[in-house]
Amino acid sequence: MNPITISEVGPRDGLQSVETVMSTADKMTWIETEYRAGVREIEVGSFVSPTVLPQMADTAVVVAGARRFENLVVAVLVPNVRGCEAAIEAGAHKISIPLSLSETHSQKNVRRNHKQMLSEISACQKLVDQVPLAERPYFEVGLSTAFGCTIEGLVEEHFVIEMAARVLDLGVAEVGLSDTTGMGNPAHLERLVTGIWQRCGEARLTGVHLHNTRGQGLANALRAIELGITTLDSSLGGLGGCPFAPGASGNIVTEDLVFMLESMGHETGIDLEALLAVRHQVATLLPEEEWFGFTASAGLPEHFGKTALAETP
Amino acid sequence: MNPITISEVGPRDGLQSVETVMSTADKMTWIETEYRAGVREIEVGSFVSPTVLPQMADTAVVVAGARRFENLVVAVLVPNVRGCEAAIEAGAHKISIPLSLSETHSQKNVRRNHKQMLSEISACQKLVDQVPLAERPYFEVGLSTAFGCTIEGLVEEHFVIEMAARVLDLGVAEVGLSDTTGMGNPAHLERLVTGIWQRCGEARLTGVHLHNTRGQGLANALRAIELGITTLDSSLGGLGGCPFAPGASGNIVTEDLVFMLESMGHETGIDLEALLAVRHQVATLLPEEEWFGFTASAGLPEHFGKTALAETP
Repeated sequence: MNPITISEVGPRDGLQSVETVMSTADKMTWIETEYRAGVREIEVGSFVSPTVLPQMADTAVVVAGARRFENLVVAVLVPNVRGCEAAIEAGAHKISIPLSLSETHSQKNVRRNHKQMLSEISACQKLVDQVPLAERPYFEVGLSTAFGCTIEGLVEEHFVIEMAARVLDLGVAEVGLSDTTGMGNPAHLERLVTGIWQRCGEARLTGVHLHNTRGQGLANALRAIELGITTLDSSLGGLGGCPFAPGASGNIVTEDLVFMLESMGHETGIDLEALLAVRHQVATLLPEEEWFGFTASAGLPEHFGKTALAETP
Repeated sequence: MNPITISEVGPRDGLQSVETVMSTADKMTWIETEYRAGVREIEVGSFVSPTVLPQMADTAVVVAGARRFENLVVAVLVPNVRGCEAAIEAGAHKISIPLSLSETHSQKNVRRNHKQMLSEISACQKLVDQVPLAERPYFEVGLSTAFGCTIEGLVEEHFVIEMAARVLDLGVAEVGLSDTTGMGNPAHLERLVTGIWQRCGEARLTGVHLHNTRGQGLANALRAIELGITTLDSSLGGLGGCPFAPGASGNIVTEDLVFMLESMGHETGIDLEALLAVRHQVATLLPEEEWFGFTASAGLPEHFGKTALAETP
């Protein structure tokens, strides 16, 4: 059972979806406590216009604060070159830019069509390449709406693979697959992952960003790790609603995901009891939000983590 | 992609867990509408003492009513020989009896230890064997708490396999694996399924009963169908709480499960839009209960069921 990296996206994907503007101090509490619970990659914010997303206005400060934690990969999202410059300036270790496979969604989300986005991605890559190697952030492109779009509907699989190849040809290290709309299923995920791997190589796609909009999050995550995907995005309490799916959670729930992985024998490095305490603490900081997930209320079985062990002679 | 049988357990597992006593007419509405949506196996009740579970007092009448629907497998649960007699008398097509691997749980649940339960199972099998072949119900044993017990904790895997073999040696057609406490994970499920298959043969275990107590239901279901399990129990709206896990749903949600299976290309015979309408209708009959699942609020993607199709040249 290979180790899996959990990339916590709550402070970015979660907070940008809620009304509450969390204070910088509270964000740092969240990041620090989750780091102490063993999480080693956290998407701490995004470099977008503070007019559009006031929740993200302090991202540079948060990046600086998060960099103090040893071996924590401090990740951020950027919509364009300007955001990428700010992310490099702030010292983010990992920078992601979304390329929505649905051009209509891309235009609504970042006001750019595919041609413009590919040019933007190329410019970001050039910027990143100018950073001295010792300080150079890891740059990747998230292929959003890869499993379908609420506006355009079906997104053809050959088009996803084609666009992945075009992005990687620009010199980008890696693409990620994002089920932005929670429409994916395990078979679909497998076709996309193996399709991109066959075309571009396995090293160029190692992570997926899954949503739980139709309750399929953990099943899709299971198929992903069965295939050999090693990084899974998730969000504490599933924070990150889906505006077009009332009552449905956005991201997969970090706590339930860690329960699955650790129970199966995949090392995540995360202390699940400590993580459940973090959930409890962060929930008090966001009292207006709905928290998802089942492990927190059910609690851990007494023999958690010992099942497989007990069978070893 | 092999077809999968969904065994709807809501009218039994769901209704026995809630305070509300649903009228016989309402139960028949539920069963009929879900049958019309394409469900072809429904556990309609259990033959237990009406003093203990008044919700199940009309099971014989419900069985008789449900038998009117062509090709519907009318399943029931029985705790003992007396219940088995009543189930045969009523004309149930499928009779399940639970054997809890945790002896403490068995004693609390059906007031019998393992030795007594094996004797009870043997007596049930003899009763069933006396029924003329054309009318003979299918008899199976549900191995409950197979993934762990809230009272006894860890349930050793070799013991689960050993007990499956002992039950099957009594002449029982089949055992089922029940994650009564929602403690299972995909790797654990695989070890138990393959262990029983290796010891007893694949035909003797074709169905699993999974709970969603820690959000693992669909991931476990995915691993089960990957292995070749062909019958999955689930409950409309996840109805069927877990008294020891407040806020956590009991069964896996039929709607979300059908979404996964049909999206992947596994035929269930179920019209998911119609099933969502059934959920809506049954929810109005049980206004006090909490309904789980995400597909109902998110809705079906416009291209639902067409993803894989679109890729076929």
